[in-house]
Amino acid sequence: MIIILKKGCSEADAAPILESIKEKGLEPLYMPGEEKIVLGAIGDERVLASLQLEAVDTVERIVPILKPHKLSNREFQNESSEIEVAGVVFGGKQVPVIAGPCSVESEEQIVTTARAVKKAGAVMLRGGAYKPRTSPYAFQGLEKEGLALLDLARKETGLPIVTEIISEHDIDHVGAVTDMFQIGARNMQNFRLLKAVGNTKIPVMLKRGPAASMAELLLAAEYILSKGNSKVVLCERGIKSFFGDTRNTFDLSIIPLLKKETHLPVIADPSHATGVRDLIMPMSRAAIAAGADGLVIEVHPEPSKALSDGFQQLTPDQFEDLMSAVDRVAHAVDREISAPQIAKK
Amino acid sequence: MIIILKKGCSEADAAPILESIKEKGLEPLYMPGEEKIVLGAIGDERVLASLQLEAVDTVERIVPILKPHKLSNREFQNESSEIEVAGVVFGGKQVPVIAGPCSVESEEQIVTTARAVKKAGAVMLRGGAYKPRTSPYAFQGLEKEGLALLDLARKETGLPIVTEIISEHDIDHVGAVTDMFQIGARNMQNFRLLKAVGNTKIPVMLKRGPAASMAELLLAAEYILSKGNSKVVLCERGIKSFFGDTRNTFDLSIIPLLKKETHLPVIADPSHATGVRDLIMPMSRAAIAAGADGLVIEVHPEPSKALSDGFQQLTPDQFEDLMSAVDRVAHAVDREISAPQIAKK
Amino acid sequence: MIIILKKGCSEADAAPILESIKEKGLEPLYMPGEEKIVLGAIGDERVLASLQLEAVDTVERIVPILKPHKLSNREFQNESSEIEVAGVVFGGKQVPVIAGPCSVESEEQIVTTARAVKKAGAVMLRGGAYKPRTSPYAFQGLEKEGLALLDLARKETGLPIVTEIISEHDIDHVGAVTDMFQIGARNMQNFRLLKAVGNTKIPVMLKRGPAASMAELLLAAEYILSKGNSKVVLCERGIKSFFGDTRNTFDLSIIPLLKKETHLPVIADPSHATGVRDLIMPMSRAAIAAGADGLVIEVHPEPSKALSDGFQQLTPDQFEDLMSAVDRVAHAVDREISAPQIAKK
Amino acid sequence: MIIILKKGCSEADAAPILESIKEKGLEPLYMPGEEKIVLGAIGDERVLASLQLEAVDTVERIVPILKPHKLSNREFQNESSEIEVAGVVFGGKQVPVIAGPCSVESEEQIVTTARAVKKAGAVMLRGGAYKPRTSPYAFQGLEKEGLALLDLARKETGLPIVTEIISEHDIDHVGAVTDMFQIGARNMQNFRLLKAVGNTKIPVMLKRGPAASMAELLLAAEYILSKGNSKVVLCERGIKSFFGDTRNTFDLSIIPLLKKETHLPVIADPSHATGVRDLIMPMSRAAIAAGADGLVIEVHPEPSKALSDGFQQLTPDQFEDLMSAVDRVAHAVDREISAPQIAKK
Repeated sequence: MIIILKKGCSEADAAPILESIKEKGLEPLYMPGEEKIVLGAIGDERVLASLQLEAVDTVERIVPILKPHKLSNREFQNESSEIEVAGVVFGGKQVPVIAGPCSVESEEQIVTTARAVKKAGAVMLRGGAYKPRTSPYAFQGLEKEGLALLDLARKETGLPIVTEIISEHDIDHVGAVTDMFQIGARNMQNFRLLKAVGNTKIPVMLKRGPAASMAELLLAAEYILSKGNSKVVLCERGIKSFFGDTRNTFDLSIIPLLKKETHLPVIADPSHATGVRDLIMPMSRAAIAAGADGLVIEVHPEPSKALSDGFQQLTPDQFEDLMSAVDRVAHAVDREISAPQIAKK
Repeated sequence: MIIILKKGCSEADAAPILESIKEKGLEPLYMPGEEKIVLGAIGDERVLASLQLEAVDTVERIVPILKPHKLSNREFQNESSEIEVAGVVFGGKQVPVIAGPCSVESEEQIVTTARAVKKAGAVMLRGGAYKPRTSPYAFQGLEKEGLALLDLARKETGLPIVTEIISEHDIDHVGAVTDMFQIGARNMQNFRLLKAVGNTKIPVMLKRGPAASMAELLLAAEYILSKGNSKVVLCERGIKSFFGDTRNTFDLSIIPLLKKETHLPVIADPSHATGVRDLIMPMSRAAIAAGADGLVIEVHPEPSKALSDGFQQLTPDQFEDLMSAVDRVAHAVDREISAPQIAKK
Repeated sequence: MIIILKKGCSEADAAPILESIKEKGLEPLYMPGEEKIVLGAIGDERVLASLQLEAVDTVERIVPILKPHKLSNREFQNESSEIEVAGVVFGGKQVPVIAGPCSVESEEQIVTTARAVKKAGAVMLRGGAYKPRTSPYAFQGLEKEGLALLDLARKETGLPIVTEIISEHDIDHVGAVTDMFQIGARNMQNFRLLKAVGNTKIPVMLKRGPAASMAELLLAAEYILSKGNSKVVLCERGIKSFFGDTRNTFDLSIIPLLKKETHLPVIADPSHATGVRDLIMPMSRAAIAAGADGLVIEVHPEPSKALSDGFQQLTPDQFEDLMSAVDRVAHAVDREISAPQIAKK
Repeated sequence: MIIILKKGCSEADAAPILESIKEKGLEPLYMPGEEKIVLGAIGDERVLASLQLEAVDTVERIVPILKPHKLSNREFQNESSEIEVAGVVFGGKQVPVIAGPCSVESEEQIVTTARAVKKAGAVMLRGGAYKPRTSPYAFQGLEKEGLALLDLARKETGLPIVTEIISEHDIDHVGAVTDMFQIGARNMQNFRLLKAVGNTKIPVMLKRGPAASMAELLLAAEYILSKGNSKVVLCERGIKSFFGDTRNTFDLSIIPLLKKETHLPVIADPSHATGVRDLIMPMSRAAIAAGADGLVIEVHPEPSKALSDGFQQLTPDQFEDLMSAVDRVAHAVDREISAPQIAKK
């Protein structure tokens, strides 16, 4: 940690800070510059953080040397993690595609969709039973009935499922059904929920919040990892920017950036990131080309009759086209789209 | 609702849409333009929303005419709401100032602070017992012990308290102590939590999320109001923008904008919005001048020893200066800072 | 154009607006709704814009039906434009790659780089002679000497050149040398400069400003097109967002969005968009996969000795790797990287 | 300057960097930490910047200690600058209000407005003759005729004038008329224009760009100052953020932040920052309360007939109300609105 003192500070101002660094058992450094004094502290920065030096009047700025995330850091584990979810592997050479409707709406809708996406090559089924909706007047999901329908669709197709959990209250009954928890973007910093899924053994897809920095995302993952659940898959789904012609701004650059920083797999959700049906195919290709370890795609048998987000859901036919398109790009970057049989080994 | 069809669409494309509008019991309008066909639908837009016309292939764009929030809307209740919390009134001519530390840390710390802020004119005490922290390795709050200490500080000073609730799980024991719930920025769209506080009679301070639009904030309030709890106070605490020299971007313009749109009181939190101690005084003045119905200010007896956010907490002396400064500005806009005796009637 | 009146407005409030629409020679529509009155105007919206209806007290909101850009619109010209620059074609099946240093620094540097990038497959050379730099104390470019060195490098290699123009003052002498003008992101709304290049016959690469919406970018292009120069190539180079771990936020989704909206070619600049050397290869692949009609890549023989932006320039070896990587992705989306011989037909 | 090396770097990796620091005549520091090596360099950071250490492979991060702006820095001149424009002083206890229409449209319009705003207490007249407009099809200003009309309005009222300059080409004829140049937000980084006004003795109002950081704004000012023109007044006019309910996001916090960092005066433009007529009064009050050294307010005799930005221009009556409102706030922060007679001493 580097501590820059305000202009005009003297050695006397530095003394108590150096003292407090020493008290924490770390090695202090004194570096008087021409205009400003700079101090250093060598050792565990997580210990130093407790000193709250930002609040000291003579301190202009603090520069941490180490990153605050630990368990998700490549400096902690250099080798990429492969996270397995009921036979589907995220983080290896193969790239799984998850597909399904925004919301589970009826038996017919979810089973039809499950069969169609399986046929097109998806290896996992998505579908919301508990829906976090901006308005209390919008459809809130079928809840427990939705979970039962997902279970049924899995039995019919063999596809493992991922579904959103919106409260630690639901851990037991959602956990009893799902193969993978989804933590949605709005709950990325619902720390109680993160701790709750961290206390299970069920894999977690953690979606990036619309205003989350890389550090915030990695520290949210850290809440899960530090409770003992190491099966975390990160998901980029778009951020808020001034740009309003797409639903969100798809921040694809964070994919290779995250891959440098963490050993966890990183997947992408072009449906929410763009919110424009015509963009989903080109941006799915782009996500794979950028290095994504998987895709989540919204598919609905009749998007114009969907109870939520109809405008961004693909028809089964469009999804089939997408699958063959992304497979070609995957090969061009020495990967391949996960084959269905892989999912059922 | 206005529906703009894609270029090249014909009357035949419009027909099924007009039909579905009629089926919902609303009046359809057909407006053929020179280049594009425009349709209209007259009636309750919340009914129309269920049509999901955005997902129809021939539709280019949907323009809602009515706002999606209802109970918080000035069109629903024109008169400004005055929300009373244990004798303190938000939304009237008087402007309450809430003050206290970021976190409750010890009996001495919270009681000392409560006395100091009361002496300086604060009419309500803030302090976090449950702390949502970005990192799992940071101090997470004293939890139940913190609640007991807040209770003690209230007994010592008579100041009502506001403290954050981070899970619907804690409703009973936090609700048993606090005079007002705080929903923090990260939980603004934790809809389960919103519904849970909506089911109580305890007033709620709802902080705007760092990426929340005005509609998203008002719809979050709507979750609480629609459950029957009408005591909601909105709080602007800064948004995320590209600008990194302050902790957040203090979006003061939303205060007069919200005051036009909703009858709910709107207060401001300059401590989190700026995150820079020297800016808190000028930006508190600015918030009052912009029409804020209250302020929340972080005060700590020794900021450099605080367990969280020390850099943005004021000393009791600095807070005293702030109080006399904002009182002058309040008078200049025909308001006045709430006097302590008001709080204890 | 749709005009929504404020709640409580009557037919009498609508009358003068309908009258003024009629006076402009357009057809007015009156649509009284349950809660608000909506008006319509059919005809050329660019005429209507001159009415300034936003400023009328009874008007709540204006909804344009047509897009303000005209000559760049696919509704004006549906077929994609192919823009030719000294034998290099942008907008067709082939994808040209432009490469070169941030700044022209010396004869040896620019000639060495030109030879290296040509060898690796670039079909055009970039290099700044006039450098717009954030600080007046930073290297400002070799100016006229830089132009002469670019000319020399072209003679040595046959590669056409693109270089930035920062003032309409320089049109003649920059235009005398360059094959293509670059309008930099900071000058995207320097309208005098846009008009000046619009008055030439020289192709223009127009970079998107860091806070430009799609409409602002297309209207900037419209300044050039409306002066008679139709050879405009748009370039996405990253926008400003809250995200600070990359230099800019690479908004790749705007590429397929622009391709829907305009017939002009759209290329991408991963060097400026990411500002992180390790991200340039994956994000170049992603740009091609998203549908980019070309790439601009910064290459320097010795990045650590560059006079500007060394941290984001590739070495010639890294560039060679990039070229073979993007070529594979191009084939996976039914395109191909432009071959050098194409450039010299 | 602090240089943090990548993990795994050794003393041998540090050696060439330490050497190059020494070669520049600065003092190098070697600080081996537990996990990473940190280097320091003491001396003029503007010299160090030329080393381009960001581009060195072994370097993880560079932390500058000094700010890149020099002449505008309070460390260079601690005392606040008072900038005088034809008798009007910016930066002292008195707060000048500049008012006038967005565009000069006719003799009657500008003279009527000038008289009205003078009567209400404005001490300076604004009005655009050269208008930078997003669309080439929008009104572009009366240009030279507009300048002549401004001159006339000044003669009629005695009010000094400020008008925008959009190209270095116009320096002579705009400079011959105006008392103060305005550099608009879109031209904040038109460095040629900055240099050109820097070469005059005419005061400059420099508006912050919609995506400009504090450093970028101060370095833009530095372009002017370093050419010898010290009469620069900064102006906050709103930034781009995800928030779309106001035209821009009024970043008032930058006012007290700038006042800490620079000795230059800082004024505010609530008309462009909000773009909503009803917000201009409360946000003008807020700007003064935040410490603004002046205001720019758009006033038009008949906003609904304005040729540009009608929706955000006040009527003369509304402006009169605003003037008495802001005067009260100014007194509450120990300032006062500049009186007309001051302007004519």
